[in-house]
Amino acid sequence: MYNFLNDYSEGAHPSILKKLWETNLVQTMGYGEDEYCDEARHKIQKALKSDSVVEFMMAGTQTNLTVIAHLLKPYEGIVGVETCHPANHEAGAVEATGHKIITVASDDGKLKASQLEKILSEHKNNPIKEHCVRPGLVYISDATEIGTVYTKKELSDLHEVCREYSVPLYIDGARLGCALMSKECDFEFSDLAQLCDIFYIGGTKMGALLGEAVVFNDKKAAENFRYSQKQRGALYAKGRILGIQFSCLFEDGLYFKLAKHADKEAQRMQDAFIENNIPLMIKSASNQIFPILTDAQMKFINEDFNFEIWGPVDEKRTAVRFCTSWATDPEQVDKLIEKIKAL
Amino acid sequence: MYNFLNDYSEGAHPSILKKLWETNLVQTMGYGEDEYCDEARHKIQKALKSDSVVEFMMAGTQTNLTVIAHLLKPYEGIVGVETCHPANHEAGAVEATGHKIITVASDDGKLKASQLEKILSEHKNNPIKEHCVRPGLVYISDATEIGTVYTKKELSDLHEVCREYSVPLYIDGARLGCALMSKECDFEFSDLAQLCDIFYIGGTKMGALLGEAVVFNDKKAAENFRYSQKQRGALYAKGRILGIQFSCLFEDGLYFKLAKHADKEAQRMQDAFIENNIPLMIKSASNQIFPILTDAQMKFINEDFNFEIWGPVDEKRTAVRFCTSWATDPEQVDKLIEKIKAL
Amino acid sequence: MYNFLNDYSEGAHPSILKKLWETNLVQTMGYGEDEYCDEARHKIQKALKSDSVVEFMMAGTQTNLTVIAHLLKPYEGIVGVETCHPANHEAGAVEATGHKIITVASDDGKLKASQLEKILSEHKNNPIKEHCVRPGLVYISDATEIGTVYTKKELSDLHEVCREYSVPLYIDGARLGCALMSKECDFEFSDLAQLCDIFYIGGTKMGALLGEAVVFNDKKAAENFRYSQKQRGALYAKGRILGIQFSCLFEDGLYFKLAKHADKEAQRMQDAFIENNIPLMIKSASNQIFPILTDAQMKFINEDFNFEIWGPVDEKRTAVRFCTSWATDPEQVDKLIEKIKAL
Amino acid sequence: MYNFLNDYSEGAHPSILKKLWETNLVQTMGYGEDEYCDEARHKIQKALKSDSVVEFMMAGTQTNLTVIAHLLKPYEGIVGVETCHPANHEAGAVEATGHKIITVASDDGKLKASQLEKILSEHKNNPIKEHCVRPGLVYISDATEIGTVYTKKELSDLHEVCREYSVPLYIDGARLGCALMSKECDFEFSDLAQLCDIFYIGGTKMGALLGEAVVFNDKKAAENFRYSQKQRGALYAKGRILGIQFSCLFEDGLYFKLAKHADKEAQRMQDAFIENNIPLMIKSASNQIFPILTDAQMKFINEDFNFEIWGPVDEKRTAVRFCTSWATDPEQVDKLIEKIKAL
Repeated sequence: MYNFLNDYSEGAHPSILKKLWETNLVQTMGYGEDEYCDEARHKIQKALKSDSVVEFMMAGTQTNLTVIAHLLKPYEGIVGVETCHPANHEAGAVEATGHKIITVASDDGKLKASQLEKILSEHKNNPIKEHCVRPGLVYISDATEIGTVYTKKELSDLHEVCREYSVPLYIDGARLGCALMSKECDFEFSDLAQLCDIFYIGGTKMGALLGEAVVFNDKKAAENFRYSQKQRGALYAKGRILGIQFSCLFEDGLYFKLAKHADKEAQRMQDAFIENNIPLMIKSASNQIFPILTDAQMKFINEDFNFEIWGPVDEKRTAVRFCTSWATDPEQVDKLIEKIKAL
Repeated sequence: MYNFLNDYSEGAHPSILKKLWETNLVQTMGYGEDEYCDEARHKIQKALKSDSVVEFMMAGTQTNLTVIAHLLKPYEGIVGVETCHPANHEAGAVEATGHKIITVASDDGKLKASQLEKILSEHKNNPIKEHCVRPGLVYISDATEIGTVYTKKELSDLHEVCREYSVPLYIDGARLGCALMSKECDFEFSDLAQLCDIFYIGGTKMGALLGEAVVFNDKKAAENFRYSQKQRGALYAKGRILGIQFSCLFEDGLYFKLAKHADKEAQRMQDAFIENNIPLMIKSASNQIFPILTDAQMKFINEDFNFEIWGPVDEKRTAVRFCTSWATDPEQVDKLIEKIKAL
Repeated sequence: MYNFLNDYSEGAHPSILKKLWETNLVQTMGYGEDEYCDEARHKIQKALKSDSVVEFMMAGTQTNLTVIAHLLKPYEGIVGVETCHPANHEAGAVEATGHKIITVASDDGKLKASQLEKILSEHKNNPIKEHCVRPGLVYISDATEIGTVYTKKELSDLHEVCREYSVPLYIDGARLGCALMSKECDFEFSDLAQLCDIFYIGGTKMGALLGEAVVFNDKKAAENFRYSQKQRGALYAKGRILGIQFSCLFEDGLYFKLAKHADKEAQRMQDAFIENNIPLMIKSASNQIFPILTDAQMKFINEDFNFEIWGPVDEKRTAVRFCTSWATDPEQVDKLIEKIKAL
Repeated sequence: MYNFLNDYSEGAHPSILKKLWETNLVQTMGYGEDEYCDEARHKIQKALKSDSVVEFMMAGTQTNLTVIAHLLKPYEGIVGVETCHPANHEAGAVEATGHKIITVASDDGKLKASQLEKILSEHKNNPIKEHCVRPGLVYISDATEIGTVYTKKELSDLHEVCREYSVPLYIDGARLGCALMSKECDFEFSDLAQLCDIFYIGGTKMGALLGEAVVFNDKKAAENFRYSQKQRGALYAKGRILGIQFSCLFEDGLYFKLAKHADKEAQRMQDAFIENNIPLMIKSASNQIFPILTDAQMKFINEDFNFEIWGPVDEKRTAVRFCTSWATDPEQVDKLIEKIKAL
């Protein structure tokens, strides 16, 4: 039985384990003030062609709640689409820091500039606005929770609205690599320095044992962030292990190579479903795909492969998710494609 | 220059890195529901001779804030000594979850049963008690923040007071191994199943890359803890890496062997200071020691060794901390002792 | 210009001011432990035919946030309809205490038992439920934010679902009097002792200067509520003024008489709109009505009367709100009706 | 039996009740946007000779928690003396908003500039300051919780330190009138516009039914404060009743006349205790006094008068509090003085 359940089924890319081993007995400062963290910061800045501030976190929900709580005033909330991760699968982590998530309907997991403009202008023009939560940060994810990715124009339009209303744009990049390597992405990693105010580079879902790198293009937003990290339990004593990992991932573009692999394997699957006229919940552009299957089809595939149940579509059919990662074995994908063809 | 700055200067014990390597490509479930976490849970339960609930966290402050927020009612606070970690070095992490730390003076870092009885009875008998924060959990650390350790009687006395007032006793075990291996400790690891309601076994400061294991002897307290973990950013996708590490640490008593090493090397240093009539801020029983040095003495030692400034004692002298770990090189300790003798 | 803007445009019923005057120099205990609060508690219990616990609060948002924060575990949220007050007009007060509002679509402002059953069962059966916010309290308002009222069956069906899933039912009764006196209400005040677990009796919007009375039919839920009141700034030094007011309101059914007056005057208006074929956003059963007007119609009425803009319906028309209170002058309603007829 | 238990035993000054009566049926806007609130704002600004921003709150703890949560960043705390109200008698209200209270020992209830300088400089110079709570606001009360009052120099010294470290100075003025009217106070009400950044004028303990007026000398600090008021349940629908009361209190200096009365009567008592050689816990300058009595003395006075038990001084004696208010009857004070003479 092979798993396409998620993108964190395996451990880390071997080069990471190797560097952890090699550096293991070097004595360093704690809490992210070591040379490996600095090395990783510099590599990320170089790739980004920017001197943005880079800090390391351990995990995604932790990153979201820490960044959001750091940036908002007590009476502010975040704007995000209804399917966004913090509104659904973080057990109320953002609300636990005191902030509401103002949700917007979206059929493709993406927030549109026109939707954002509407929300922000409505609040601004509301005569009793102090009875409502003030939008204080815009949250998007790229790739989205349902596999779609933003274009450069979509991001720059969003960012322009954000600037007009003085609200920062934050990109949850848990699957940022897969977004950037997607065929539908028309911008470079380095464009992110201009396209948003804060974003994070997901490591957990892209070849690291653990770790996310938060990038503050807006340096003022980074002020005192280490206090927030410590307060939320996200400033780690052996912070070196985060630096070591991101240093590996940003050596020779490894991060992007791994993402490209994940995308390619997922897209091969999706193409097979499409060729066989299996409907999709959404056409994905990255490493998660969402075919709609009957019970019999699910059972047939499940003889050899695990996947995730996403939710019922109608009485007879279910949307499911197949997810690939840096570690996905192409031979297993080949086998899966054979089964898809046989559906 | 060799560091005695802290117990997290190095990486992980080699057996941990080895097991991470060996298991790297095994596909597992996420979020702590994998076989390695189960293996580690069973090993800990076996060592504890109890079926207590075991869950894994990434770091110490994260563990404290998550456990405390999980257990308290909104109007409750924790009781701890003035030197306790959450009151001083967690950037207000407990308060950020909405709870006050009710502090008690202590000259040796330990909370006494009589002090606790006084606080709990005063609150209970206060005619306007609803104007005050209700004590809802008792926090102690073993070893304490200043290197002292609890005896079995001290713990059981505290626990008895806790039971009398229906307030759980929680032990922060960031340095639990060093407490248990201390010559002044007169109880076994397995006694902890009876001596408190919840405790955690520190991995970060004892040979792990990262990770702490929370043990709920009170199973009711563990109910829905996974929600709290997720909400606080402490339920980790690649949870397997925590399980793998604790499985190593609880194989053949490795955790305790490593702790014993750290204690031994620190105590050798402390003995050398004592023999040379250097005063101590506190007589430590574990892996942190606190001599009081003049500027000249600090400078002399600092030629070869780093240590931490703890704080001024008087105009001429400063309390400093030397800290050992599983990785401390005995030869470096020998060299340090030579310098101590030469002070 | 006469205001139908809201139900808090005027001060208090004269009998309340009179009793405040008469008792002004009597010395009492503070913080709700005085004889007037006790008197009011007993009158409410008598009207309710139950020994439910009664506590006094100063205002509605304060009541909601205090009750909700008191009852929920940190990882729990409340369930309410999309139009519910806490989700829209409390500036994130509930989220500021750390809790999410799980919203459900509703076209009439009411939550249906079938909707609630669906949400609660989905959560219970969710294999990764700890990644989601756990429903911990059901919030409804009666009358609703858009003037509709619950029937006895609707409430008892909701309450049955709540009991099945062990989640308390809380009724926001900011306009409870107007709900109970509505022609569409088929139950008595005393039925509320069985129909929900906690509710509050709104004073601010029904003849008091200020004040709301929280009623805990579930006495266990009331345990330590005074701590929560104090902590949220809702335990008031001169608590007597809340007791004095509720004692007046529950003398000879004054509360219900005042509510009946408000309902009657609003329904007269609504009938006039209906007779003149003016469409309604919703057919109200209580003291708030919501006709849909053109700009010209709004202008015409606004020559003599203020009302609230609720929101645009289409490009040409706007939903507006007329609101009556205990103090509404029937002659002014007569005049308004003349204008409605002339639309 | 006559009460000297506290300064909120009676209702409101008659002129307040009179004005509530006279204005009762005037229709106004809600939530503090009415003409009475504006009138009160202007009167306060005039008395203060400043255009500081004035907003109205319902009660003291509510005011403290709302102002503090409004002004602090998530990782900041407040600095206050150990006896300060938020640290002792607000049931953890400040911590419930996520913030620590950093306490300083004080024998007279006052914070000294030198103490503050020490705390702020220590934090600033701490190499691991992000592990500690950052001081973000300085809280003092005048009069203090134990009846002492600040001099102009004490306040301006504190304020200078605050400015040096860019931390605002906030004065809890629950008993501000009694501080200003104290014989030991050497400044005017209008000096407060320069002596601090934010303060509040207590109404509850000085002749109002309820209400406190927050004054922001620092106008930037007042930005969006209405959001914070709403979110904390402190923006009141019938806000007019707060405006009406403060308009009365600031008509012809009523507020100060009432405070002067309270001070005078309390000081007469204190003088009597001193003359009869009864020791004091602290020499008070305002309307609360703290003699130390034996059980027999307490019993003797308690034949005719209630007072508050403050706490045991030694095995035989207890500190108690006598408190006066705007409503204190001088004849009862005469009678008490007779008893004091007879001790």
